[in-house]
Amino acid sequence: MNASESTPKTGKIMLVGLGPGSHDHLTARARAAIAEADTVIGYVTYIRLVADLVEGKEVIKKSMTEELDRAIEALDRARQGKKVALVSSGDAGVYGMAGPTFEVLFQAGWTPDSEIEVEIVPGASALNTCAALVGAPLTHDFCAISLSDLLTPWPTIARRLDAVAYADFVVALYNPKSGRRTQQIVEAQRLFLRHRDPQTPVAIVKSAYRPKQRIEFTTLEKMAEADIGMLTTVLIGNSNTFVRHGLMVTPRGYANKYAVADGERNTHAGEQAGRSLSSGLNGWMATIQASGRTAAELAVDYRLPADYLAAVLATEIPEEGEANEVEA
Amino acid sequence: MNASESTPKTGKIMLVGLGPGSHDHLTARARAAIAEADTVIGYVTYIRLVADLVEGKEVIKKSMTEELDRAIEALDRARQGKKVALVSSGDAGVYGMAGPTFEVLFQAGWTPDSEIEVEIVPGASALNTCAALVGAPLTHDFCAISLSDLLTPWPTIARRLDAVAYADFVVALYNPKSGRRTQQIVEAQRLFLRHRDPQTPVAIVKSAYRPKQRIEFTTLEKMAEADIGMLTTVLIGNSNTFVRHGLMVTPRGYANKYAVADGERNTHAGEQAGRSLSSGLNGWMATIQASGRTAAELAVDYRLPADYLAAVLATEIPEEGEANEVEA
Repeated sequence: MNASESTPKTGKIMLVGLGPGSHDHLTARARAAIAEADTVIGYVTYIRLVADLVEGKEVIKKSMTEELDRAIEALDRARQGKKVALVSSGDAGVYGMAGPTFEVLFQAGWTPDSEIEVEIVPGASALNTCAALVGAPLTHDFCAISLSDLLTPWPTIARRLDAVAYADFVVALYNPKSGRRTQQIVEAQRLFLRHRDPQTPVAIVKSAYRPKQRIEFTTLEKMAEADIGMLTTVLIGNSNTFVRHGLMVTPRGYANKYAVADGERNTHAGEQAGRSLSSGLNGWMATIQASGRTAAELAVDYRLPADYLAAVLATEIPEEGEANEVEA
Repeated sequence: MNASESTPKTGKIMLVGLGPGSHDHLTARARAAIAEADTVIGYVTYIRLVADLVEGKEVIKKSMTEELDRAIEALDRARQGKKVALVSSGDAGVYGMAGPTFEVLFQAGWTPDSEIEVEIVPGASALNTCAALVGAPLTHDFCAISLSDLLTPWPTIARRLDAVAYADFVVALYNPKSGRRTQQIVEAQRLFLRHRDPQTPVAIVKSAYRPKQRIEFTTLEKMAEADIGMLTTVLIGNSNTFVRHGLMVTPRGYANKYAVADGERNTHAGEQAGRSLSSGLNGWMATIQASGRTAAELAVDYRLPADYLAAVLATEIPEEGEANEVEA
């Protein structure tokens, strides 16, 4: 903000994540932020999701490609001393309005000490809500990749797909396909099939928690043939993910660790709660240091860079503390 | 469920994500699920977050390592016809109780047609809430990696760190460090420094939206020296992420696409809204097919696998549709 501006006022920009869009899944803060706002700005579809909450307010509907315009309108209104809610489905920070808004603010000379306050109201993103509908696919390491090449060069996207397919992440594909972009999902499949089993489970979730919700399970091999559009999120499992009774589940290893039968639990011998696996960092360091093998040989064994293995071979194994630590 | 069981009843298990934990960030459905429950089960810290909502209910507090016990207790109560809320901070599906619960249910013979209903109530995960507090770090592709080697072999974790450091993801590290595990964050730093600038911005967020909340900005080079514990999430930026005025922002490319000055917007020549970059998939396919270069040469240019490039060279470039598509 320009300090010499004629009429300084106190405005506020709230970046509000609506979650999947049904009122049930709005947070109390998201609802209060909209109630507090003088002006509500958003993509037409998002405004429709909260239509009954915006009565009597100034409502500015924008098309999907007008993200910067939304941020500029928000700044304009906030400069007039208004409270503005910029609404997004999912989380405003995940491929959302938070980024473009800060860029517009910075370019306009805004700082957090300016008279305009900025608040981000987090919400569950498509990744979380789609996962909740299909079972428990995100119980292990995961990532999100947008297949839109509107702002990102394809080689960058391809490199990311290749890396995470190799490293066995659960992957959520955002913007997987549009009328204009049909080949990107085919390329994603091609890159994944270089590393993953063709039978890897894939869930296709459209319009989660909305009236037109549709869930389809398929496999990596058939993924590109599925009915996929701009309102779809694609979830690709890792090498342990399975589908049973119409639920997609990625185990964390509990099934191997315990035998559970009809409410009974038995801890396997040598598997004490709160202790690392023997293949945990310390155990692994001890193993490779005692192996007598070279960094180059170990690089092949473990599919890790040789220079990293050389560094680990030269590192003293840390003392492992007591197992009284809580751990998620 | 065993069909011959003596007293079949209708129970329900609700896996409730509390988000960061403050009531402001509970969804309406999360609050209603807890209200509906006869029994509330959770890790002691999570139960404390909703203490005022569980009065008059059966409350079962468990330690962090008793995840399977929590699921077994939930199944036991549901078999008695009770409604059970299994509460987790963040999202119950992200490194949460949803996975172990389905595994316990499957092993006990449960199916979705059984008399016990299962509902997952999604919430904002640590990734979303920490991002909301530090600015807009997740505006581009990101991933989540847990550094806990309790159930995952270290070479698997190391391979993932190496892959995503190389492929320039924004990365959220869950369970980065504990009293017992101090070396994992050092190893993560070592793997990242092989690919990333030592000055890459890193945010350390502790107890987001709770009374003891603390946010620290540092760099990849100094990451391992920061005050990190079990209630901390570590956010590592990508090669474009910057920190300005105490806010961490990952641009999507808007700053390059438009010139924004004091509320004015100018679209640069040749950058029409809704069209791919010339480096988008179709443009890139045209470029490499016209280049006369071999797959092996292109593999070096673009740091992509040669066999993938050979396949792309042999693929017909798809027709690009009209630019009237909405796109996130």
